[in-house]
Amino acid sequence: MSAYTDLMTFQRETEALGQVMGRLGWDQETMMPAGAAEQRADEMAALDGVLHARKTSPKIGEWLAIVDPEDAAGKRQVELIRHRYERTQRVPADLSAALARTTSLAHRVWAEARATNDFTLFAPKLTEVLSLTREKASALADGTGLYDALLEDYEPGTNEAELETMFDALRPSLVALREKILGSDRDVPTLAGTFEEAGQLALSDTLARAFGYDTQHGRIDKAVHPFSSGSGLDVRITTRTMPDDPFNCFYSTIHEVGHACYEQGIDTDYLLTPLGRGVSMGVHESQSRIYENQLGRSKAFTGWLFRQMVAQFGDFGIPDADTFYATVNRCASGYIRTEADEVHYNLHVLLRFDLERDLIAGRLDVADLPDAWDTRFEHDFGLKVDQPANGVLQDVHWSEALFGYFPTYTLGNVYAACLHDALRRDIPDLDDQLADGNTRAATTWLRDKVHRHGGLFKPRDVIERATGTVPSEAPLLAYLDAKFGQIYGT
Amino acid sequence: MSAYTDLMTFQRETEALGQVMGRLGWDQETMMPAGAAEQRADEMAALDGVLHARKTSPKIGEWLAIVDPEDAAGKRQVELIRHRYERTQRVPADLSAALARTTSLAHRVWAEARATNDFTLFAPKLTEVLSLTREKASALADGTGLYDALLEDYEPGTNEAELETMFDALRPSLVALREKILGSDRDVPTLAGTFEEAGQLALSDTLARAFGYDTQHGRIDKAVHPFSSGSGLDVRITTRTMPDDPFNCFYSTIHEVGHACYEQGIDTDYLLTPLGRGVSMGVHESQSRIYENQLGRSKAFTGWLFRQMVAQFGDFGIPDADTFYATVNRCASGYIRTEADEVHYNLHVLLRFDLERDLIAGRLDVADLPDAWDTRFEHDFGLKVDQPANGVLQDVHWSEALFGYFPTYTLGNVYAACLHDALRRDIPDLDDQLADGNTRAATTWLRDKVHRHGGLFKPRDVIERATGTVPSEAPLLAYLDAKFGQIYGT
Repeated sequence: MSAYTDLMTFQRETEALGQVMGRLGWDQETMMPAGAAEQRADEMAALDGVLHARKTSPKIGEWLAIVDPEDAAGKRQVELIRHRYERTQRVPADLSAALARTTSLAHRVWAEARATNDFTLFAPKLTEVLSLTREKASALADGTGLYDALLEDYEPGTNEAELETMFDALRPSLVALREKILGSDRDVPTLAGTFEEAGQLALSDTLARAFGYDTQHGRIDKAVHPFSSGSGLDVRITTRTMPDDPFNCFYSTIHEVGHACYEQGIDTDYLLTPLGRGVSMGVHESQSRIYENQLGRSKAFTGWLFRQMVAQFGDFGIPDADTFYATVNRCASGYIRTEADEVHYNLHVLLRFDLERDLIAGRLDVADLPDAWDTRFEHDFGLKVDQPANGVLQDVHWSEALFGYFPTYTLGNVYAACLHDALRRDIPDLDDQLADGNTRAATTWLRDKVHRHGGLFKPRDVIERATGTVPSEAPLLAYLDAKFGQIYGT
Repeated sequence: MSAYTDLMTFQRETEALGQVMGRLGWDQETMMPAGAAEQRADEMAALDGVLHARKTSPKIGEWLAIVDPEDAAGKRQVELIRHRYERTQRVPADLSAALARTTSLAHRVWAEARATNDFTLFAPKLTEVLSLTREKASALADGTGLYDALLEDYEPGTNEAELETMFDALRPSLVALREKILGSDRDVPTLAGTFEEAGQLALSDTLARAFGYDTQHGRIDKAVHPFSSGSGLDVRITTRTMPDDPFNCFYSTIHEVGHACYEQGIDTDYLLTPLGRGVSMGVHESQSRIYENQLGRSKAFTGWLFRQMVAQFGDFGIPDADTFYATVNRCASGYIRTEADEVHYNLHVLLRFDLERDLIAGRLDVADLPDAWDTRFEHDFGLKVDQPANGVLQDVHWSEALFGYFPTYTLGNVYAACLHDALRRDIPDLDDQLADGNTRAATTWLRDKVHRHGGLFKPRDVIERATGTVPSEAPLLAYLDAKFGQIYGT
């Protein structure tokens, strides 16, 4: 048992240092003075060096060779540590370093290319990143495909074939649904006017609390791109405000609260261990999405939100709660993934999933990527991409070598819909509660079924245990059809 | 040259990690959610372990054995690294660990003892801390006395005898001055009424900017106890507000700006090296004090501040700038060091200096400390200590084993007065500038003479080079006599 204790002591320190690294990232986006960036890079590089040395320490290998915990949690801790250690061991140090250097540079070049709308500026760097990523995938692949090897970083246990089957079933239905909606003659109004920042932030706080965010173990600040950060007893979120779009603030807040409540809800026995974090990107996204969409954008809850907005801002031009519900859920074709509605969002993701698989497989050259993007986009969205910043250059992910990350967004939406079905089944009067702005039963259910387990079960098993069925895309499609069919009368 | 490069690369990483540790401390006092304390302790302990391992790494010894840089800055870098490394080597690891454990516990016991006004609660822990500190001093003493060995951590290059001579010359003059002042029949009014927080913070910002604080490389937040934190490109300060005492806010801000401008002003060539930080506690305090007192509490500058306060708060009951100047500098006997005026402050420090030297030398038992404190206090302040929280329990330092720290406060005041004499000599029209709230010539002088050098020169040499004379207590006494003689007509 002593080797297990030693291993876990070492691991806890590593996890604690990982939390420090996360806090530096939080600070950088919220508090750091503008002129401190250069020094901060040195600070983070130094801490990254410490973390890398610990994660590759031969001591871990020695402990792993002899540990044999008896309880399920201990076995799973060791399984996770072993899995990550073996992956770390497979990637040569010089390849890791080359990837870190290249992505750091590529990120800057990407930002410049996006600002100047010039893909050719980014192409050489993306080619380098892609080449190194394929090399890394080869090193990691353990009898699996390259893309499978990359997926493992974000959604352990899934694979390309499984996702492809699921997503191929989604795509035609989503395209058909969006065509129906856009062909509808229902007129859904948008918000007009401006909404003062203090009011947006006050209501954002109210929403965070309504969804059970614990400010004794977190805090809310502003950032350019909202995010959630940290695990355990210190889980912080950020939001943003735009004068003419308070929904951006409110639903960013609810989305990040979903991520944060997952982390805050994990059994504190798992604090600073591999089990003490959300189990995968997909399961994480399922929490942010079910908070944001299935609950936060439900007819019942938006009825309550409408009253809060009237109380905060007075008459803002939307006549009643029904209209408000439609406005919150208004569908429109657009270029940008992060601004997309529930119907279009997954089409954005599916496009990236298919293109990045082609890149990794070597079926698509970087030089041909913009054309491939634009062709696919026009097919699925009925719109011609007007400029690269609205197309292939819009997302940061590929510059950072995050190949395999995109599909977890849609997987999260799929999981959210599965959980939502089970939630509705277990809480028949959910809408009555949401209509009062009361999410307690829903968030307690999610905490019990998902959050508290942290990394104890494999990602897909979390959903299966919570819902009692094998996850599939069917609930998401049924949910979208019903919801938007009602709103648009299709 | 390669060993030097390797040593400095290693050292830069250590310094960067030290900055991260400082940022965690800042976060803890300003941003951290209340419920995160336990996890934060784990995070800081993990990082402390990393720092300790680096600071005691045998690699440093190997590099030090062969490096031989040719330029003055390189020689000084090596001198500082060698000095610290050798000291670290001299303290056995188990003694370091025992001190860390004991002071952590003693700090909590001290807080409880202070809250309940019960010295006997604290005495056993203080006895333990003292015993371990004496043990550490023995290990560090290199042919010097125990107290000298401790001083070296805060004010390298000075010693007990030197400070004793200087402070013994100060004490009777300060006692005589305070008696003259308190015997004066001049009536100096205090502030009355309350001052809203937003106005205090706005004026605090104005003051920080007036004194040259660079918010591109820093930020101002609120904290219970104001402090300055960080070096190089990210130097943050905190302040606090009390409704009935805006001077507390303003002069806390100016004081911390003094510390921060020192750090911000250091030559960026020294970034993340031993030369890239203020050279000693005494020189650091000289900067905070000259900003706060000789400049910030001058008649010329308070004339400008009076106008700012009237503009911010309207008529607040002080009729004119002359009365305001007296109010800002009002002298009164009081129990608490941190609330003391310029005349009483050093008497507080001298008391602690003498008592802690007696403790370290074994001339005074912990059990006899309260009596010794109260007797000395009554002699120097003409007041009987009414309760331990207002006497021997007021300061945190001894619970944290910071023996040798107190004298740097008064040394800072001594140095500030020396610098102030030289500053007045070099800038004859300083008062005309300060009367407009313009500190640029003064702060530029300090930057050139003190700040930019960082750790390049030994502490005392910094002052001697800046002023052209050997530092002595005479300028401080002359400054206090003149200033308070004028205010109190003595």
